Amino acid sequence: MTTNNQTRITAEPGKQELFIEREFDAPRDSVFKAFSTPEILLQFFAPAGVTMHFNTADYRVGGSYNYTFTMQDGSAFTSFGFFHEMSAPERIIQTFEFEGMPEQGHAVLEILTFDSLPGERTRLTIQDICRSVADRNAMVESGMESGLVIIFKQLDELLKSADH
Amino acid sequence: MTTNNQTRITAEPGKQELFIEREFDAPRDSVFKAFSTPEILLQFFAPAGVTMHFNTADYRVGGSYNYTFTMQDGSAFTSFGFFHEMSAPERIIQTFEFEGMPEQGHAVLEILTFDSLPGERTRLTIQDICRSVADRNAMVESGMESGLVIIFKQLDELLKSADH
Repeated sequence: MTTNNQTRITAEPGKQELFIEREFDAPRDSVFKAFSTPEILLQFFAPAGVTMHFNTADYRVGGSYNYTFTMQDGSAFTSFGFFHEMSAPERIIQTFEFEGMPEQGHAVLEILTFDSLPGERTRLTIQDICRSVADRNAMVESGMESGLVIIFKQLDELLKSADH
Repeated sequence: MTTNNQTRITAEPGKQELFIEREFDAPRDSVFKAFSTPEILLQFFAPAGVTMHFNTADYRVGGSYNYTFTMQDGSAFTSFGFFHEMSAPERIIQTFEFEGMPEQGHAVLEILTFDSLPGERTRLTIQDICRSVADRNAMVESGMESGLVIIFKQLDELLKSADH
């Protein structure tokens, strides 16, 4: 089966938030587990050619994550954040910051919501809330969409092969 | 000395954020310390007649706080959050959630910025970024301003009496 699920990014002008929506042909428990289990994240969260490793992976309320993406040319990008809520299988609330920003302090509040759909399907909605409209626009213009399309397709494959 | 410092809340229509600005007649180190030291917070952060106690007070990056306000009628309100950044003496980035909300998940991203002003004075700016404009409006309409005016005045007194 080839999935037709689309990645939809909504960034309303003048707002400091954006929404990413994507449906998956897998039950909510499986999709939630994929986004909250470091061993599974390592299997789909980095685009091909990029190596991901966790420096910290404490996926629980009050825990934190810190991962590095290493590109084929050797350059590396680290992101980190803290978990404010981890309510299986419906919601994750976390902070996110990209260490490569020109200055520190540009944290994002990120809320992942997992909704059950008919037919054992799931809608994932990610709301990213930024310090400013400029920060939000920079995120959108960083090419996040092409990266997300790739990793969500990788997750489709993984979910297909996994025992739900 | 009576201070004339005003509490200013800015909540632009249609935005999901608000800004609280307040100046203090004390150096930045002292004001930062007041907002990052549980023993000092207990001395000014609750309005008169309200008892504050910490259930958790781990004021460091990756730590968390959880405090309860108990009113004179016995009703109690708990708030909690996690520290994303704790950069003395200039910035604290934390999450905040009020447990008394009708439903869970309405976390706020809160950024406290401490700027040095001439004459050993300090400007504190608190940016509260909410999940929605409605959440932001509810915060403003909850009467936050009167509470803040009181606790900032209590902090003025404390800073006057303290050894800076």
